[in-house]
Amino acid sequence: MIRNRIPDVVVKRLVTYLRVLLDSDFAGSDFVSSAQLGDMAAVNGAQVRKDLALFGEFGKQGVGYPVQELKDQITKILGADRDMPVAVFGIGELGTAIVRYLLSRGRSSPNYRFGPAALFDEDKRKVGTLVEGLVIHPLSDLEAVRKAKDLKIGIITVPASAAQEVVDRAVSAGLKGFLNFAPAKLKVPPHVRVHYTDVTLELQELAFYLQGSMIH
Amino acid sequence: MIRNRIPDVVVKRLVTYLRVLLDSDFAGSDFVSSAQLGDMAAVNGAQVRKDLALFGEFGKQGVGYPVQELKDQITKILGADRDMPVAVFGIGELGTAIVRYLLSRGRSSPNYRFGPAALFDEDKRKVGTLVEGLVIHPLSDLEAVRKAKDLKIGIITVPASAAQEVVDRAVSAGLKGFLNFAPAKLKVPPHVRVHYTDVTLELQELAFYLQGSMIH
Repeated sequence: MIRNRIPDVVVKRLVTYLRVLLDSDFAGSDFVSSAQLGDMAAVNGAQVRKDLALFGEFGKQGVGYPVQELKDQITKILGADRDMPVAVFGIGELGTAIVRYLLSRGRSSPNYRFGPAALFDEDKRKVGTLVEGLVIHPLSDLEAVRKAKDLKIGIITVPASAAQEVVDRAVSAGLKGFLNFAPAKLKVPPHVRVHYTDVTLELQELAFYLQGSMIH
Repeated sequence: MIRNRIPDVVVKRLVTYLRVLLDSDFAGSDFVSSAQLGDMAAVNGAQVRKDLALFGEFGKQGVGYPVQELKDQITKILGADRDMPVAVFGIGELGTAIVRYLLSRGRSSPNYRFGPAALFDEDKRKVGTLVEGLVIHPLSDLEAVRKAKDLKIGIITVPASAAQEVVDRAVSAGLKGFLNFAPAKLKVPPHVRVHYTDVTLELQELAFYLQGSMIH
C-alpha cells in the first residue's frame, strides 16, 4: 500500500497502536494478540487485524504479532524514527505549558522526536527572555532559525486574530505542517498541512456520550 | 437510529458539521449542499450525505439541506443544547489557559455550554486564590461543589502521577465524563467515559503527512 493512500482514520489508529506498543510491555511477552492490542487502543480486535493486514501478513494465527517486529514495522510506515523539530508560536500560558510538556517528554524518552527547538512571540517584553533555557525569538528571526534548527512543525498558540499572519510567515519561511490551537480556520497552500485541536469540539463529543448515559 | 448505536467516527463528524454550521453563514443562504458542508469539514460530500441519511431524509435533491433545520437536527442528536458545567482539575499553566479559553468562548457566544464552573488544585498556595474571578477549591470541596454547580465534566491537567487519584475522587463525587490532558491512562468504572487528548499523538499523526510530502 502506498503511503499516500493510507486512509486518515487508519493513520490515526496506527499512531495509537504504536503508542500502546511503546508504553506497554504486554507482560514481557514476545507476542501480542489483536484482542490485547485492540483493548489497549480502544479498537476492536477485528479492526486491528484489518488495519495491520494492509501492510502484509506479519501476525501468526493463534500466537499473535511479534511485538518488536510490529513496533519496527509501524515505526517505518509512520516514519516515526525521524526527528521533527518543533517551533512554538505564542509563548503565553498554553504555549509555555506545551514547551514544558515537550521538554519533559524529551527528558523521559531519549528518542522523543518532537523537541521544542525554537520559541517565537511578538510581545517585546517576552522576546529575548528564556523559558526553560530556551530563548524567545521575534518572528523576524523565523527564516534564519528555521534553517539553523531545521524546523519542521509549527505549533500555533497565538490569539485567533494573529494566527493567519503567523502561519503565512511560517509557510514563507518553509514550515510545512502546523498543529493549530488557535480557534481560527487557517488558509494554507496545498502542500502545507494544518491539524486543528479544539477543546470545545472534544467537549462536545464527550458530552454526547454523557447525554446518552443520562437517558438510559 | 438509536443514540447509542451511532458509531464514534460519525459522532466526531456530526460535531464538526455542527461547528461548521454554527461558524459559517454559507453566504446567507437558506440551504447548504453536502459538497459545501464537506468542504468546510474536510470530509467528502458523499460521506456527508451518508452520515446525514442515518437520521432521516431532510436534504432536497439539487437544493441541499435547509441550514436551520440541519442545525436544529444535529443539535438534537448530539444533545448540544444542554449545559455541561465543567470542573478543571490542576490550575497550572495548561489549566489556567483552558479556564481562560472556556471563559472567552462563553463571552463570545451566550449559548456556550461548557462554562468552567469550578476550579480545583491541591497546592495550598493556590487554594483560595482567584483565576478570572473564579476561586480555586481544594479537592476536599469536590462533592459539595459538584452538587452545588451540577458539574458534569472534569478536565484533568494535573501531573500524570496525580491523575488517577484525582479521577477516582471525581468519580466518587459523581462526575461521569473526563477530558484527560495528563499523559496517563486512567482506570474508570464502565459508566464513566474518558477522552484523551495528547499533543504527542497529534504531532505523530501530522508528521506522517510531512514525511509523505518529503518523499514526493
